[in-house]
Amino acid sequence: MSAQPSVSNSITVRLELPGRATAVSELTGAVERSGGLVTALDITHSDNDRLRVDATIAARDQDHADGIVEAMREIEGVEIHKVSDRTFLAHLGGKLKIESKVPIRNRDDLSMVYTPGVARVSLAIAENPEDARRLTIKRNTVAVVTDGTAVLGLGDIGPLGALPVMEGKAALFKRFADIDAFPLCLDTKDTEEIIRTVKIVAPEFAGINLEDISAPRCFEIERRLRDELDIPVFHDDQHGTAIVVLAALRNALRVVGKDLSDVRIVQSGAGAAGTAIAFLLVHAGAKDVVLADINGVVEPERPDIKANPGSDLAQIAAHTNPKRVTGTLKDALRGADVFIGVSAPNILTGDDIATMADDAIVFALANPTPEVDPDEAAKHATVVATGRSDFANQINNVLVFPGVFRGLLDAAATKVTLDVMLAASEALADVVKPEELNPAYIIPSVFQPDVSKVVARAVADAVRTEHPERD
Amino acid sequence: MSAQPSVSNSITVRLELPGRATAVSELTGAVERSGGLVTALDITHSDNDRLRVDATIAARDQDHADGIVEAMREIEGVEIHKVSDRTFLAHLGGKLKIESKVPIRNRDDLSMVYTPGVARVSLAIAENPEDARRLTIKRNTVAVVTDGTAVLGLGDIGPLGALPVMEGKAALFKRFADIDAFPLCLDTKDTEEIIRTVKIVAPEFAGINLEDISAPRCFEIERRLRDELDIPVFHDDQHGTAIVVLAALRNALRVVGKDLSDVRIVQSGAGAAGTAIAFLLVHAGAKDVVLADINGVVEPERPDIKANPGSDLAQIAAHTNPKRVTGTLKDALRGADVFIGVSAPNILTGDDIATMADDAIVFALANPTPEVDPDEAAKHATVVATGRSDFANQINNVLVFPGVFRGLLDAAATKVTLDVMLAASEALADVVKPEELNPAYIIPSVFQPDVSKVVARAVADAVRTEHPERD
Repeated sequence: MSAQPSVSNSITVRLELPGRATAVSELTGAVERSGGLVTALDITHSDNDRLRVDATIAARDQDHADGIVEAMREIEGVEIHKVSDRTFLAHLGGKLKIESKVPIRNRDDLSMVYTPGVARVSLAIAENPEDARRLTIKRNTVAVVTDGTAVLGLGDIGPLGALPVMEGKAALFKRFADIDAFPLCLDTKDTEEIIRTVKIVAPEFAGINLEDISAPRCFEIERRLRDELDIPVFHDDQHGTAIVVLAALRNALRVVGKDLSDVRIVQSGAGAAGTAIAFLLVHAGAKDVVLADINGVVEPERPDIKANPGSDLAQIAAHTNPKRVTGTLKDALRGADVFIGVSAPNILTGDDIATMADDAIVFALANPTPEVDPDEAAKHATVVATGRSDFANQINNVLVFPGVFRGLLDAAATKVTLDVMLAASEALADVVKPEELNPAYIIPSVFQPDVSKVVARAVADAVRTEHPERD
Repeated sequence: MSAQPSVSNSITVRLELPGRATAVSELTGAVERSGGLVTALDITHSDNDRLRVDATIAARDQDHADGIVEAMREIEGVEIHKVSDRTFLAHLGGKLKIESKVPIRNRDDLSMVYTPGVARVSLAIAENPEDARRLTIKRNTVAVVTDGTAVLGLGDIGPLGALPVMEGKAALFKRFADIDAFPLCLDTKDTEEIIRTVKIVAPEFAGINLEDISAPRCFEIERRLRDELDIPVFHDDQHGTAIVVLAALRNALRVVGKDLSDVRIVQSGAGAAGTAIAFLLVHAGAKDVVLADINGVVEPERPDIKANPGSDLAQIAAHTNPKRVTGTLKDALRGADVFIGVSAPNILTGDDIATMADDAIVFALANPTPEVDPDEAAKHATVVATGRSDFANQINNVLVFPGVFRGLLDAAATKVTLDVMLAASEALADVVKPEELNPAYIIPSVFQPDVSKVVARAVADAVRTEHPERD
């Protein structure tokens, strides 16, 4: 489980070496002894007694990278010129650009794209606002909205700290679904202000993707915007996660030959993701879903829940845990068929997994460190999945949100319903063909070319089934 | 002054004609007799007895285009298939796209652009927010903000009606200054809400371009945002117009050999543009500026102005009209050296212009119909300019806003001051070389390749002079 050298922590070191026969091997040796990985080595200049080299090296983290550079300085006669962090290089100047789709070569072009021609288009839309979906960017544009309060595992890092993540998200929207997404990183944490701001900017967008807003505010914000806007509002941390988890679970259950309506599912974490997963599982037909959070199993008689009958937790308690299980997560886990963790690192051991039913399924999705060491879990469970790319079965929202929004936009959807989410999860699960299915392959790779198209088609069909009058 | 057929009102007609020798000339004849202009004629298919033709035709307006098509139907044996409006075609799907600047080809790319690599970039910015100008889109991104209340000459057409104009503006930002501009068309007309919304979204932008917000709210919004934000706020209808007018006026005065500090300037219109022009003229050294609006000359004793001592109009009255002229626009115009109209169509005649001083300068900028017929004005004035592209001396904001923002962004400016605007207007005026200057060429074309670069350099220099510590 210790971190491996990774491209996301790679550096390019520009340096000079003496022109002796062993020079390059001394360099690679120094890197390797420090635990780094040379991933590229370009000799950019050479003469009789000097070599100029660009060495690209993967490290575990920034301290490790610094240590590798120090080790390289020990090589006799070396001169280190410049150390560049490749991830920071990739971010220079930001990751998005806004381009004109129409050429502006001369006055004729100008007169159509801008005044006076544009006035006729504006008037047409003012008279019939639905035309905005035909004649403006609304057709294909999604807002990626955050307040920067729950960014990745970093917590509240503010709107500017969140911006690189939202830019990345927008880049993924383009890459996987040809959607124009623009980040809106809001400088307020006030629930009502966030709701009001999104409503004020909403007309030009065809959908809102909420992102990395801390619970419980994210629930209220999503609920209110869903009710008050006429475009779909999708909170990826909730709904994207729920869809991909359900898809993976469908296939995991196929692998072990169990049925969703029969299995006992225990979840760890009752925040944004945990709540949405539970509701979608129940909607999909799961009959026995039990959640636990840091205070133990969620059930109506738990004092903190009983004291707040209107809370989100009380809602969950009312809709899950039909057998009224009480106690700790570990108590609940005993005999369970499925564990789904969206909570905290290392809260379970292999021994805990051993108490589960035969052919157990373990989704330990806390990032970067899962709830249980996946190698340990695999000794006792039949199917193990994580959120990490360096283990089998990566549960990754990138499999979901591009295709879901593509489908919503294609069908000019006004809502995202649970049925639409169900359709998305079924379509995603079915991307893995029966003959491909096995314990190490329950969910496709994000780079499998069909994923977002298949999900989009299923979503658009589901929307059109709900609103046949829109066609 | 009657409208000419224009590309911005052009249609493409797909039709079939009998294969007789005169068919094409019958077609062009029908169009020309209806007052249309055939600008392109493509024969897309031909056989022994039929021709398939795409005819592109410029019309005066939509009714005229309909009439032309009707005239074409009279041709014997013609079959009209499809009539497409070229301006609407250019708008299909909107005019902007958002692209990723970084490739996402594989998992390594993904791990740098998104998780886990992006986390280090986010943390670096959270620790040092100034890094956002280096590592995010903030470096080069401007918000084009409107509430849709004063769009072109169309009035209050709402946020969606305004969107094609703002998209066009963003396209011009890209075309002329390589700036990434994103439209924000706000669904509120409340001054405080507009201010608050812009402040909430502001962190990720390097500048705010306010656009087509009706007076007097636009003054308060601009003033407050200028005071409360740490990025430049530019209201193009005010400041862009003022800069281009001052630049044109400098050159017009050179043509007639008069000095800004000596001339009497009479303005018509005391809205957003008129006010900003007056303040910039005074800041540039003009000593005798008189404004008139629909109620007559603006002066402190005018009853409606005296009754509202805190109003914008009272401010103007206090800073202009040093000789305390009273009466109507026409009264004030008598003997004036310069007329600048940013008001309403056809409020003056050639006879009114004849009452001005010798070598008069007339800028009649109301669009699309100027304050006075430019041909009539030219009989009595030495220099005449309009806002239209079909007369000499087009006063067009496109000459200003791309270069101004390029300079502001390059210098990481936090404000736009009157001195910065002055620098921009001087640089723009000087694009016209002394040997090029004449009454019909006081301002360069928007397609002159150097304009925005020259303006940008002057603006960046002016910002750096004001804030030498930023370098």
